[in-house]
Amino acid sequence: MRIGILGYGNLGRGVECAIRQNPDCELTAVFTRRDPSSLKIQTPGVPVYNVADAAAHASEVDVLIICGGSATDLPKQTPEFAKLFNVIDSFDTHARIPEHFAAVDAAAHAAGNCALISCGWDPGMFSLNRLYANCILPEGKDYTFWGKGVSQGHSDAIRRIEGVRDARQYTIPVQEALDAVRSGSQPELTTRQKHTRECFVVLNDGATDADKARVEKEIKEMPNYFADYDTTVNFISMEELQRDHAGIPHGGFVIRTGKTGWNREFDNVIEYSLKLDSNPAFTSSVIVAYARAVFRMKNEGMTGCKTVFDVPPAYLSPLSGEEIRAHLL
Amino acid sequence: MRIGILGYGNLGRGVECAIRQNPDCELTAVFTRRDPSSLKIQTPGVPVYNVADAAAHASEVDVLIICGGSATDLPKQTPEFAKLFNVIDSFDTHARIPEHFAAVDAAAHAAGNCALISCGWDPGMFSLNRLYANCILPEGKDYTFWGKGVSQGHSDAIRRIEGVRDARQYTIPVQEALDAVRSGSQPELTTRQKHTRECFVVLNDGATDADKARVEKEIKEMPNYFADYDTTVNFISMEELQRDHAGIPHGGFVIRTGKTGWNREFDNVIEYSLKLDSNPAFTSSVIVAYARAVFRMKNEGMTGCKTVFDVPPAYLSPLSGEEIRAHLL
Repeated sequence: MRIGILGYGNLGRGVECAIRQNPDCELTAVFTRRDPSSLKIQTPGVPVYNVADAAAHASEVDVLIICGGSATDLPKQTPEFAKLFNVIDSFDTHARIPEHFAAVDAAAHAAGNCALISCGWDPGMFSLNRLYANCILPEGKDYTFWGKGVSQGHSDAIRRIEGVRDARQYTIPVQEALDAVRSGSQPELTTRQKHTRECFVVLNDGATDADKARVEKEIKEMPNYFADYDTTVNFISMEELQRDHAGIPHGGFVIRTGKTGWNREFDNVIEYSLKLDSNPAFTSSVIVAYARAVFRMKNEGMTGCKTVFDVPPAYLSPLSGEEIRAHLL
Repeated sequence: MRIGILGYGNLGRGVECAIRQNPDCELTAVFTRRDPSSLKIQTPGVPVYNVADAAAHASEVDVLIICGGSATDLPKQTPEFAKLFNVIDSFDTHARIPEHFAAVDAAAHAAGNCALISCGWDPGMFSLNRLYANCILPEGKDYTFWGKGVSQGHSDAIRRIEGVRDARQYTIPVQEALDAVRSGSQPELTTRQKHTRECFVVLNDGATDADKARVEKEIKEMPNYFADYDTTVNFISMEELQRDHAGIPHGGFVIRTGKTGWNREFDNVIEYSLKLDSNPAFTSSVIVAYARAVFRMKNEGMTGCKTVFDVPPAYLSPLSGEEIRAHLL
């Protein structure tokens, strides 16, 4: 299977690594908005093209993995490139999934291509686990916890505060809340009860104690991002940030508890969790497995937009049905 | 969707409970090898038929859930009834799945019916999680732990020992082994290192200390069942057994750890776990969700034998694609 990458940031580089771990996949093209001659990729011998020339290279790629951002890139790129390629993206603005789905579905159908959106771990593997658990336990309650992990959006929000040179924000699930959920008691939890936020902030040179106090106050009172959480702010040096906070770890928990039995007398806990040293490397690994599924679906004549909910699990595997039944069932 | 139950034991009764929790499902027939007039079921107004008369009632059932045992019932029943019904079973003899699949596939194809075998949690949800995790992390290692839970097979093995009136055996995962796996160190674990076995045994009246010593020795040295494990044997009264060990709890953990990154520098842990007050009630709940999928596949013209690997997750849900994308993705 010949894979193309559109956008060579953290996610694009992760896809490049994941392809290397899947012998049936080959990276055949990277598309960039930058000057292609300025881009140095890790895989030897793979051409880098300007995204404007993508149409000319459509025949070199079986599935194009679109590695842009959800805010402005993907709503435009995924429908556009679904006219030329089978495509897959990691669109993660949950509230806008229906409209993104409709746009991609129309484009992919019209072109006879197969597309899959919102792939990764949330949306993605977490969504799948929510669906399976809901179908198995119709009478129950869902909980999703994130972390411990770096939130890029929250880190960026801190960086926009005046006087901040760099920052890293960790989202941390509250252990007592996890324990309460696992007990089966189906607690109602507020935003504050579920997660705490821990910030590591580097101030500009010459910052005073008054600057620290102001930045800490601005962080803790920031609406949507921090105001509803118990937030800790630590001021550290650039050296400490680079030494101790260079990674992009993440993870989380999807838990559903529910009742079975004639009189609902039995408690059940279904839990799925991830602990990831690198969020983009794992997301990319999920996407490459689903790229295999997109290629198979296209080869079976399916067109239009799909999500992880539509894909038979066997389509993710390079092994045959006989092999997975014999070894994994 | 009209569901029939074949075999009214623990699993059949669990299916009856699960149907009650799914408003789009209706129990329309129970088939038994016993005298139908002797069988009292919980759902009012549902006919009980002798299994010998099943053919005459095929039109009353959309999906037949076959609730027999894997040792001798299912290898015979599932292919036989796949000639008359869309069927689903919980065949769990892992080593014989390929031959069972082939027999059911041939029968279902010939009759134009849809069948699904080996449904439940292991095989079933655990298998799915093994498959997904293997596809996402091609370079890694799988671990499955069971328990804490009652093993019917091991309890039965103890009951067959001379002088034993009743017994309950719990399989318990070793916490240190779980911790070692979750660390990502990919340990090689022996059978003994992964699980312990705890037995509660009621002896016949008048048993002596010598009887106790003999029974304990026979249990601990029993090949396949106990010899490879650290086993604890507790002698208790019938009253204690009935008071403290009446339930059939179970559960377990499927964990895959693996590497991502250009130089495999990132560790990842994917974990799925279940904690179930009643093993048969949960297994039944999984089966009823998959019965919905079998009915949909049949309505789309699919025939032959399927497993959980072949079923698009959306087919398990009573909700539409739009609804699950909007609320669960």
